[in-house]
Amino acid sequence: MPVADLLSDTLTRPPQAMRTVMAAAEVGDDVFGEDPSARDLEEHVAGLLGHEAGLFTPTGSLANQLALRMHVRPGEELLADSLAHVVRAELGAAAVFSGITSRTWTSAHGRLDPAGPLAMVSTGVGPYQVTTSLVVVENTHNFGGGTVQPLAAIRAVRAATQPLGVRMHLDGARLWNAHIATGVGLAEYAAEFDTVSVCLSKGLGAPVGSVLVGPSALIAEARVWRKRYGAGMRQVGILAAAGKYAVDHHLDRLADDHERAARAARAIAEVDPRVIDPGSVETNILMLDLSQTGCPAKDYVQACADDGVRLYAAGPSLVRAVWHLDVDDAATDHAITVMTRVLRDHA
Amino acid sequence: MPVADLLSDTLTRPPQAMRTVMAAAEVGDDVFGEDPSARDLEEHVAGLLGHEAGLFTPTGSLANQLALRMHVRPGEELLADSLAHVVRAELGAAAVFSGITSRTWTSAHGRLDPAGPLAMVSTGVGPYQVTTSLVVVENTHNFGGGTVQPLAAIRAVRAATQPLGVRMHLDGARLWNAHIATGVGLAEYAAEFDTVSVCLSKGLGAPVGSVLVGPSALIAEARVWRKRYGAGMRQVGILAAAGKYAVDHHLDRLADDHERAARAARAIAEVDPRVIDPGSVETNILMLDLSQTGCPAKDYVQACADDGVRLYAAGPSLVRAVWHLDVDDAATDHAITVMTRVLRDHA
Amino acid sequence: MPVADLLSDTLTRPPQAMRTVMAAAEVGDDVFGEDPSARDLEEHVAGLLGHEAGLFTPTGSLANQLALRMHVRPGEELLADSLAHVVRAELGAAAVFSGITSRTWTSAHGRLDPAGPLAMVSTGVGPYQVTTSLVVVENTHNFGGGTVQPLAAIRAVRAATQPLGVRMHLDGARLWNAHIATGVGLAEYAAEFDTVSVCLSKGLGAPVGSVLVGPSALIAEARVWRKRYGAGMRQVGILAAAGKYAVDHHLDRLADDHERAARAARAIAEVDPRVIDPGSVETNILMLDLSQTGCPAKDYVQACADDGVRLYAAGPSLVRAVWHLDVDDAATDHAITVMTRVLRDHA
Amino acid sequence: MPVADLLSDTLTRPPQAMRTVMAAAEVGDDVFGEDPSARDLEEHVAGLLGHEAGLFTPTGSLANQLALRMHVRPGEELLADSLAHVVRAELGAAAVFSGITSRTWTSAHGRLDPAGPLAMVSTGVGPYQVTTSLVVVENTHNFGGGTVQPLAAIRAVRAATQPLGVRMHLDGARLWNAHIATGVGLAEYAAEFDTVSVCLSKGLGAPVGSVLVGPSALIAEARVWRKRYGAGMRQVGILAAAGKYAVDHHLDRLADDHERAARAARAIAEVDPRVIDPGSVETNILMLDLSQTGCPAKDYVQACADDGVRLYAAGPSLVRAVWHLDVDDAATDHAITVMTRVLRDHA
Repeated sequence: MPVADLLSDTLTRPPQAMRTVMAAAEVGDDVFGEDPSARDLEEHVAGLLGHEAGLFTPTGSLANQLALRMHVRPGEELLADSLAHVVRAELGAAAVFSGITSRTWTSAHGRLDPAGPLAMVSTGVGPYQVTTSLVVVENTHNFGGGTVQPLAAIRAVRAATQPLGVRMHLDGARLWNAHIATGVGLAEYAAEFDTVSVCLSKGLGAPVGSVLVGPSALIAEARVWRKRYGAGMRQVGILAAAGKYAVDHHLDRLADDHERAARAARAIAEVDPRVIDPGSVETNILMLDLSQTGCPAKDYVQACADDGVRLYAAGPSLVRAVWHLDVDDAATDHAITVMTRVLRDHA
Repeated sequence: MPVADLLSDTLTRPPQAMRTVMAAAEVGDDVFGEDPSARDLEEHVAGLLGHEAGLFTPTGSLANQLALRMHVRPGEELLADSLAHVVRAELGAAAVFSGITSRTWTSAHGRLDPAGPLAMVSTGVGPYQVTTSLVVVENTHNFGGGTVQPLAAIRAVRAATQPLGVRMHLDGARLWNAHIATGVGLAEYAAEFDTVSVCLSKGLGAPVGSVLVGPSALIAEARVWRKRYGAGMRQVGILAAAGKYAVDHHLDRLADDHERAARAARAIAEVDPRVIDPGSVETNILMLDLSQTGCPAKDYVQACADDGVRLYAAGPSLVRAVWHLDVDDAATDHAITVMTRVLRDHA
Repeated sequence: MPVADLLSDTLTRPPQAMRTVMAAAEVGDDVFGEDPSARDLEEHVAGLLGHEAGLFTPTGSLANQLALRMHVRPGEELLADSLAHVVRAELGAAAVFSGITSRTWTSAHGRLDPAGPLAMVSTGVGPYQVTTSLVVVENTHNFGGGTVQPLAAIRAVRAATQPLGVRMHLDGARLWNAHIATGVGLAEYAAEFDTVSVCLSKGLGAPVGSVLVGPSALIAEARVWRKRYGAGMRQVGILAAAGKYAVDHHLDRLADDHERAARAARAIAEVDPRVIDPGSVETNILMLDLSQTGCPAKDYVQACADDGVRLYAAGPSLVRAVWHLDVDDAATDHAITVMTRVLRDHA
Repeated sequence: MPVADLLSDTLTRPPQAMRTVMAAAEVGDDVFGEDPSARDLEEHVAGLLGHEAGLFTPTGSLANQLALRMHVRPGEELLADSLAHVVRAELGAAAVFSGITSRTWTSAHGRLDPAGPLAMVSTGVGPYQVTTSLVVVENTHNFGGGTVQPLAAIRAVRAATQPLGVRMHLDGARLWNAHIATGVGLAEYAAEFDTVSVCLSKGLGAPVGSVLVGPSALIAEARVWRKRYGAGMRQVGILAAAGKYAVDHHLDRLADDHERAARAARAIAEVDPRVIDPGSVETNILMLDLSQTGCPAKDYVQACADDGVRLYAAGPSLVRAVWHLDVDDAATDHAITVMTRVLRDHA
């Protein structure tokens, strides 16, 4: 096991207190709507986000996919950033399972510029051109490097598209991090969207699960589709209880992850400022751009791994490091030591 | 909560010992293949069934659907009993998500007669007719009333279809029950199929999950599609450990469920032999046929519910009762008292 | 070219008069709704069948598929005969393109027995079982041997399913033949269905095309989906004019095809009555059952082909012969001579 | 009927000579591969484009869709210009019917800049990110204004993506126009692509149809899928013969369309150079940008229509005019008179 495992914030293992909660969770058959812990989590998260209803799902991908299916009819399109999780990391599920076509805008670091989607939105184009039904925003933006989306940009897109009947979905797998980083309320973000997905198994540290929130009728239909996807789990309260614990106990501590990531960024920039701009690190993700160092991402990742620091090669010269519950100050110190040394040696 | 909850064997709640195992389970990120408890369960179940590899899934539906997708290309067909779970209770997922068309044979109590599928199998019909790629057998047959499939019938279908290149999938959600009822080995059944799904959350009493077994290459591809379906869970060892415990500790006790179901069948048949033939009760499921009593299934179910016995109206005059881990002798006694009394009163 | 080409009634070549009509057809861009010949044909056929509106399609398969898509939502099911064209000869398109799951009943010679579909119809089964949305009837039944569906049976299915909200589609590729054989009006048949497809390029002898009729709103939506399928043709009036000519001039003459097919059946039955029951030949299709003769279908077909009679091996011991516009009395005489001689020699 | 119908080049009506050819065309049942006119056209076009085999389809959309299906497996992606026909004007068919997800680059006037696709191509990203399988180039680019794609740009994309296993498809609905405008050979363009679709019913003036060309094995599989799409037409030689005539007789005359479009562009630019840059008009399409005139596209289109000139509002302030076979010099003179006058009056 690595000393500092920065591969992903999905790696977190449930701490003992969370395990105790799981072991004692009250459960029932959730397919019949009889699992009190699942109900409790769904209502709690919906409340936090200011939406009517919630639905527990085994993954953030499924939470997103159910939302997309509810918003976009076969043959209609969604618009998203070209590096958004829904178009890059969900294996084309929106097309395969829901017949949704997509167009993408490009951006710097995944940061939303309203001009991107607004140049593409297409409605009222008669029966023979594709109608835009949905804009997807990811906050924070994973492949962009944990980028926080500006509330003003979100609102500008909302203001321009809502009158056209276009809906908006927030892929908020890491919305918790945006909230902690900016102080903007969870519900304040969520108010601009028709549906929001949030993930319990990334920074918050639950073992499994996400929650989709939105209008009650939409969530009821999504519940049926969840079953169609083969995700109608039975005594799922075991997992939901862990998720509830995570929301209650691990939200505020995300600030520690952000601080540690920032500290690492500063240390690395001191060695080679071309690799990262510390000012760009807003949350728990570092994206190192090695393109000007001559060191391939794979070599850098391997060299760090040899010394107990696990990273992710996100591209030929792009390396990602993610802080989370299981990376403390000591592990961060070790990571900084190794990452800067390898940078000096290889680049 | 009902005194005797015979709605389904999916209702079982994890007992304390199973919860203790879950709380202590060793876990990792299963998307990266790093969850030792998931690996352990997958290998164990594959071994039990004599297949190369296994894959944990959140539901039996998904285990089935992944198998179907692996065996049948878009536009090809599967053949199944007209009351099989894959065509009745998975919400059309094989068509929606995998483009699989289906034809069905009919049967008495879901019992496989080789003539059913063999009259339909169609291969070598050039490019312009539909090719049969898969025969699905469900054992035991849920909507048929827990019917055990005759090994000879299975083998007859296999012998006739394998030379044609047609594959066979076993929906073995309750294969455990067939094995306990007949003494035929799990692997003996499984040897006749290309893939087998088994469920941990029905009679065996685990909270969540199924396992699909088959050839290693097929399972590897199914693993990718599991992710595409949004079912790539993270620290899923929590659930897998419960599943492993269930296989280790709750398999032999299925005989108790079968004995209790048989006892109830005999008591009911004494009151009205038109409602059930005790000889037809082979495992843990009773199908009461009220058509000759004049009592609608819904009324019977309601009257029993009023006295703490929960049943399932499986049709206008069909009532299903299912025995499981959480229905002991005392609950069975109560169920018998209520079910016979309501039968006398209403029918 | 064979002397008697009985392979299929799709083989007909447009006669000179029809070609003259095509060459003079008034046309426009049908994607913009500006082709007068297409409009004329659509309205004319809708009128004949007593439905509100019509839509020209390049094939009967597409006419059927558009209807299925309009009636059945993804994950819902259709019921059909196990040898119906929609489940056997459209390459699984309903599943692949529309996510429609299907169950099938079996029948003798494809003749509709209401018990088949009615035993399967399933509505009001809550969100977690598949809902039946559509029953498809094929009249005449191609693979059944040109079988005419009894109007009483159709009406019995309609009466039982309409109150449940289940719709009915008539695959009337050869409805013309049923009408001519029985004298039952086209509109009389069509009145029992929500939509009807009829084919212009089979017995009627047009080169290309079918028409789907139904309610105006449904047809309008089907028109959009026709474009999505890539079948929004431009100056299609060339073909539509041929179709209109075919309806006007080739309907009554189908009686000749029926008489010739019956004559051939009688001659063959005289040689070997096990091969065909002349009483079963109702329209233009003969199904020879060679199973009791020991002669494989392929050998019989080859031997006839060697003498200028082209037939179709519809199964290992099943041979189909179809009469149409391009098979006159002389060709029929030749076919009878060859088919009876080969039967004597080989069987 | 308008004096100058510039709505689209799909509007052309077959001239008398073409009708005569259709009326005399030798035909057969193309589903059985027996239509000599279809075979002839397919081989002729494949030869012109230097590819192995060809397939006649009822529309350019279907020719494209069959190619996409052959190149991209469900869950993989294609890359295209954000205004490409395949993502804008085929109603999302690639997602609906083939499960293909897409990302898009943006461009000026649809002109291919290799940086667009090359920034997005993603291969070798393991099982859990989407793999790029196809780049689609449209030449000329319809919504870009008939823009010709630079051969050097095409070759740069080919050189960079071919080694990665990424394929390229040319949507050459108007490749004829690119060839006539530049003198670059049809086969020279086509050599850079795995498959090419060309349309017979746009500038060339055939009533219906396109041809897809590519490797023989791919075309054979596309032929089966064409049937699955419901586009397996019967005596289609009627249409194919028109297509062959169009290729033989109407290719060179596209130069007239280009010259007329250029003349109109110059006249309009003289009135208001902000509306169109005559240098940007390369083929038969004019895109008028009215955004700086204050005149909404709809008003401009209506005013021209009132005087017998039909145009297309391609956006809120974008108007398209297309020259073709049925717009001669006189009609062009009239169009220029009206379009410039309306521009003076309204803008």
